[in-house]
Amino acid sequence: MTSDFTRADGRDLDQMRSVRITRGFTSNPAGSVLIEYGNTRVMCTASVEEGVPRFKKGSGEGWLTAEYSMLPAATHDRMPRESMRGKVKGRTHEISRLVGRALRAAVDLSKLGENTINIDCDVLQADGGTRTASITGAYVALADAIAVLQDAGVVPGQPLLPPVVAVSVGLVDGHVCLDLPYEEDSRAEVDLNVVMTEAGKFVEIQGTGEHGDFGREQLTEMLDVAEKGCRELVAAQKAALGV
Amino acid sequence: MTSDFTRADGRDLDQMRSVRITRGFTSNPAGSVLIEYGNTRVMCTASVEEGVPRFKKGSGEGWLTAEYSMLPAATHDRMPRESMRGKVKGRTHEISRLVGRALRAAVDLSKLGENTINIDCDVLQADGGTRTASITGAYVALADAIAVLQDAGVVPGQPLLPPVVAVSVGLVDGHVCLDLPYEEDSRAEVDLNVVMTEAGKFVEIQGTGEHGDFGREQLTEMLDVAEKGCRELVAAQKAALGV
Amino acid sequence: MTSDFTRADGRDLDQMRSVRITRGFTSNPAGSVLIEYGNTRVMCTASVEEGVPRFKKGSGEGWLTAEYSMLPAATHDRMPRESMRGKVKGRTHEISRLVGRALRAAVDLSKLGENTINIDCDVLQADGGTRTASITGAYVALADAIAVLQDAGVVPGQPLLPPVVAVSVGLVDGHVCLDLPYEEDSRAEVDLNVVMTEAGKFVEIQGTGEHGDFGREQLTEMLDVAEKGCRELVAAQKAALGV
Amino acid sequence: MTSDFTRADGRDLDQMRSVRITRGFTSNPAGSVLIEYGNTRVMCTASVEEGVPRFKKGSGEGWLTAEYSMLPAATHDRMPRESMRGKVKGRTHEISRLVGRALRAAVDLSKLGENTINIDCDVLQADGGTRTASITGAYVALADAIAVLQDAGVVPGQPLLPPVVAVSVGLVDGHVCLDLPYEEDSRAEVDLNVVMTEAGKFVEIQGTGEHGDFGREQLTEMLDVAEKGCRELVAAQKAALGV
Amino acid sequence: MTSDFTRADGRDLDQMRSVRITRGFTSNPAGSVLIEYGNTRVMCTASVEEGVPRFKKGSGEGWLTAEYSMLPAATHDRMPRESMRGKVKGRTHEISRLVGRALRAAVDLSKLGENTINIDCDVLQADGGTRTASITGAYVALADAIAVLQDAGVVPGQPLLPPVVAVSVGLVDGHVCLDLPYEEDSRAEVDLNVVMTEAGKFVEIQGTGEHGDFGREQLTEMLDVAEKGCRELVAAQKAALGV
Amino acid sequence: MTSDFTRADGRDLDQMRSVRITRGFTSNPAGSVLIEYGNTRVMCTASVEEGVPRFKKGSGEGWLTAEYSMLPAATHDRMPRESMRGKVKGRTHEISRLVGRALRAAVDLSKLGENTINIDCDVLQADGGTRTASITGAYVALADAIAVLQDAGVVPGQPLLPPVVAVSVGLVDGHVCLDLPYEEDSRAEVDLNVVMTEAGKFVEIQGTGEHGDFGREQLTEMLDVAEKGCRELVAAQKAALGV
Repeated sequence: MTSDFTRADGRDLDQMRSVRITRGFTSNPAGSVLIEYGNTRVMCTASVEEGVPRFKKGSGEGWLTAEYSMLPAATHDRMPRESMRGKVKGRTHEISRLVGRALRAAVDLSKLGENTINIDCDVLQADGGTRTASITGAYVALADAIAVLQDAGVVPGQPLLPPVVAVSVGLVDGHVCLDLPYEEDSRAEVDLNVVMTEAGKFVEIQGTGEHGDFGREQLTEMLDVAEKGCRELVAAQKAALGV
Repeated sequence: MTSDFTRADGRDLDQMRSVRITRGFTSNPAGSVLIEYGNTRVMCTASVEEGVPRFKKGSGEGWLTAEYSMLPAATHDRMPRESMRGKVKGRTHEISRLVGRALRAAVDLSKLGENTINIDCDVLQADGGTRTASITGAYVALADAIAVLQDAGVVPGQPLLPPVVAVSVGLVDGHVCLDLPYEEDSRAEVDLNVVMTEAGKFVEIQGTGEHGDFGREQLTEMLDVAEKGCRELVAAQKAALGV
Repeated sequence: MTSDFTRADGRDLDQMRSVRITRGFTSNPAGSVLIEYGNTRVMCTASVEEGVPRFKKGSGEGWLTAEYSMLPAATHDRMPRESMRGKVKGRTHEISRLVGRALRAAVDLSKLGENTINIDCDVLQADGGTRTASITGAYVALADAIAVLQDAGVVPGQPLLPPVVAVSVGLVDGHVCLDLPYEEDSRAEVDLNVVMTEAGKFVEIQGTGEHGDFGREQLTEMLDVAEKGCRELVAAQKAALGV
Repeated sequence: MTSDFTRADGRDLDQMRSVRITRGFTSNPAGSVLIEYGNTRVMCTASVEEGVPRFKKGSGEGWLTAEYSMLPAATHDRMPRESMRGKVKGRTHEISRLVGRALRAAVDLSKLGENTINIDCDVLQADGGTRTASITGAYVALADAIAVLQDAGVVPGQPLLPPVVAVSVGLVDGHVCLDLPYEEDSRAEVDLNVVMTEAGKFVEIQGTGEHGDFGREQLTEMLDVAEKGCRELVAAQKAALGV
Repeated sequence: MTSDFTRADGRDLDQMRSVRITRGFTSNPAGSVLIEYGNTRVMCTASVEEGVPRFKKGSGEGWLTAEYSMLPAATHDRMPRESMRGKVKGRTHEISRLVGRALRAAVDLSKLGENTINIDCDVLQADGGTRTASITGAYVALADAIAVLQDAGVVPGQPLLPPVVAVSVGLVDGHVCLDLPYEEDSRAEVDLNVVMTEAGKFVEIQGTGEHGDFGREQLTEMLDVAEKGCRELVAAQKAALGV
Repeated sequence: MTSDFTRADGRDLDQMRSVRITRGFTSNPAGSVLIEYGNTRVMCTASVEEGVPRFKKGSGEGWLTAEYSMLPAATHDRMPRESMRGKVKGRTHEISRLVGRALRAAVDLSKLGENTINIDCDVLQADGGTRTASITGAYVALADAIAVLQDAGVVPGQPLLPPVVAVSVGLVDGHVCLDLPYEEDSRAEVDLNVVMTEAGKFVEIQGTGEHGDFGREQLTEMLDVAEKGCRELVAAQKAALGV
């Protein structure tokens, strides 16, 4: 833990990469957002469909589900397309489920009517943090999609809950670093993804000692840094939404 | 065939939609292009991989293959993701094969060494003509990828052949129209896709009487209009490539 | 383009292989035909099923769909069975879709009631032209199946439209040749498949420069030869049907 | 068990349907046979491939494997194609395995060299007894394929063992009937398939009480009748092979 | 066939391995049994579900279906998990179908109401005879599940029929041996599986000459020995059920 | 958070269910353990295979991978078998990956030689906590498998690292509860799974606000309780292993 540790891109340890949120990135889905955390670029869309899955039928409530995917050329070395392999990788499933849980924390399903919102997060360019960028971007797409439903008079109330954002923190060479790019992520001792509400509450935390374990103090330090990042991400979402 | 036929977007019958080609759209693949034919937007990438498929091993020649796909939210109504369905639709297969054949006409495989170029065409937004835009955009991505190989000294000669482009023409309410958007495409009597070289030769023509058949004169008229569009597309490619 | 070009089987350049059509080849489906273009032999059946796919429900119209497949031992070297591989090849999908489009041009769906006709084209022996033989043979099976429906009083009118046939033409060593066997097909510079009505109108044309491109004059010449072949195929269909 | 029981097609209880064996049914595979048990028609081919599966590599021995399949229109009501469903039905697997075991009893793998024989049995028309006809027909195709290997000097010895045949017997309305067509098979109390060598030894017996169980005496009676049928099938094979 | 043949585990030729049946092995399914034939251990469950498959809808009758599977570490060398391979092996299908047929002979579907019983046989440890142990154990699970239905007043009558059991017999070095463990099974000349009712009637017999064929006398001898084993298995079932 | 909150099974809030670990549960794999957390019962095996996956070839290091699965009748309502559905559920993938990461923290791959350890966790009976029980049980199976490798002289050093265990904690009606059974798990506001080493360090933490979010103090309280449970689980592992 020498004092001369510097990050490849020159950022401070607790500094986010530059975050850009572009609304209306495409025009067909009700909400369509391009989010960028540095070089990581994810297209997040929210599409509305009438009706709900079988297990929700007749409940009077809505549903939200999410799918995450990498374009084959998003990564440094091209990866085979999952549709051609005929099956979805475990990692893809895992992240799709995470995004779905996170976004369900941002919507009051009881106010959505029996409608389903499909979140799609397609990574155009990957440089670490694709799952966290997906969540932060999908919230903005969700907000836009719900506004469309409200404008159309489909939902009378306000199903949208306050912002939900996500960021990664890691222990790299013993230093707690915020928002890891691929180069840091791949050699981090510990990788922690935090999904947080505007109020600073956790929706999900997933910490993994990829190359080593970690103690309570390190967890505390990582959560502090994550919280700082999340506050900034909420601000970026609000600026993008103009609220 | 009344004289008062007008196109929804006000174009002349033989007028292309606005074509935009953005090189370097993403940074990981050797070639990465966003191509737009009006509202149709396709990300075309060319990734280079050492080695060739089994049937080319030891030939001293390279190979080029292509995959086409629609993002689920690219269309007006969201379509299920093929990776989740576990199988690729016939339409996807058909277009992937067309793109591959078209681009193989733009590369001299014997000068590529035993390397494989993977073309990926991912439709971000669909409004008709996604297969033709894919071909035109992929040529530019291919050119950039081959330049990378040349700069790296991997290929000594010039494997890139002159431009290959593609456009659709259709018979709509009895009128030959160039470059159909979705609205026209879905009600066209005849749909013709033409893949052409800079020299005005055909690489592929596919004409289908979706709601009616067509005669020799109509074919001739459609090919004339397609040729006009193709000349403009070659110009757009060259402008983008700065050649 | 020397004058001493001869075809391996001694045919004239614009001569069809011997065409044989055997109706009632099997007894379970409403229409069952064995069609032979020389050594290419395809079993074409038309099966009638009550009801239509979801997207046609309530339309009062019928539907027609087609599936093409090669038996594993149909080719010179045995090919793995697609059912065992668990997925259908792109080529199979592409041809199935072509056959379906071609045959839908031979039936007035609005006169079929809400019934579905399933066309199955199973190649028993392959020697080039399997997709074109499939279309020509399937028309005869379709005619027989519609006659069954009429005899049963299920369809009051005449859903059957005039003959639809298909043939391949190619550019082999610079010569336009009709109805290519495998040996010619595999080395042809250009391969053109033409689906035509009795009236000489195109239902579909698909021309591919597999090893080279082609110009307008060559296209014209190829279409002339294809038209000659198609006229003969219509005659063969009519002879088989006794009309 | 009234004495007035008659079979729908007028046969004696212990009488086979008419058996026809056509060699050289198609020309690409080394052996190709059309076998008919009455209205049941199966195309049986034997294709030779150099090399053996991994578990046989280096053994100096050959291998034989078999695949059985129904064409979709072979049955009275069309059945979905397994390649399109993306999976093979249990029944298909079961019969493929049975045919493989039966035919391996007809070949001395140690005299085959490291070659694989692929047996394909594709049912063109189904009227009961498709698995037994497959086995009987495949033996003839196997004999032809081995003759090809011998003529080519690939196998010095005689890998072909004496004939293997198969027939079904059933208990229908309490009567032991030989070679059940579909109508009898579907209502039989007991269904027994017997695979037998020329010497009258069993290679496989599979008896199932579909709608009832059966005792030792009934088994004995059924085996007697099966043995009669098998003798006749061996004679038919030998006649077809001219030995 | 020397007189000094001894079995690896010292059993008499016609002696079963030790059979243990543990009811209530798990608590969620209506019937749950662990059955052991020596070292072979199978968990057999019977789960009840309201409703029947489509082909039984409206019949007033119930249905019974079965699935057999090996845990990956059940065998000496771990086998890949079928769910991960994405397809079920032919052997698995074949045994699942056998178990289903056998158990349907133990239930009067007409007295079950429109309910479905799902039999699951999961092999925890494999040492030969897994399919036969599955059948014998599943009967006990079925009995328990039907008792639950009766206690709940769902079925007024008695759908359970008398015991069905299964055992393997084989010809090992020319000796007829009962209940083969893996070591004997893998080198047996003939393998015969017999499914029998309490009354000594056959539900199913499947005899295979894996490395040789067999004659009528050998079949008779094998059936005699199988019958002895089956009587003992029925006694074990009844002891377990306390009837 | 009334003081009268009681758990359905009468446990204290920070009390584990009864934990039982049975070594040598089956005999084929190198390590085989049945672990029970109350009514949750998981069979955990560790199988050793020579060689490593491609990405580890030539590294001199070993690999460990894990697969988790539910038997269909493990749950209250039977669930369809993943092998029959032809695809693995996201939840299964997610847990398999978690178990793999957790167990890789318990083995020094550099001391394993180029061998692969396959962990299989098959849930026989599910009552909440199946993923945490899988991890705790798999460690014991891993220890036994490594001992086998050491006894065989395959690994000279000690690849086994100190114990790794896992437990769930949840917020139920506002109370922090240890080791949730299904009934509590399904209605918990927050669900936290903790994987911990003997030294009290985290290998992985996954906290999800299923029906609500949670703050830093609640996280701290949950981690305290989890730590208590983990200490007891390590003691149970050591008792089982006799160390």
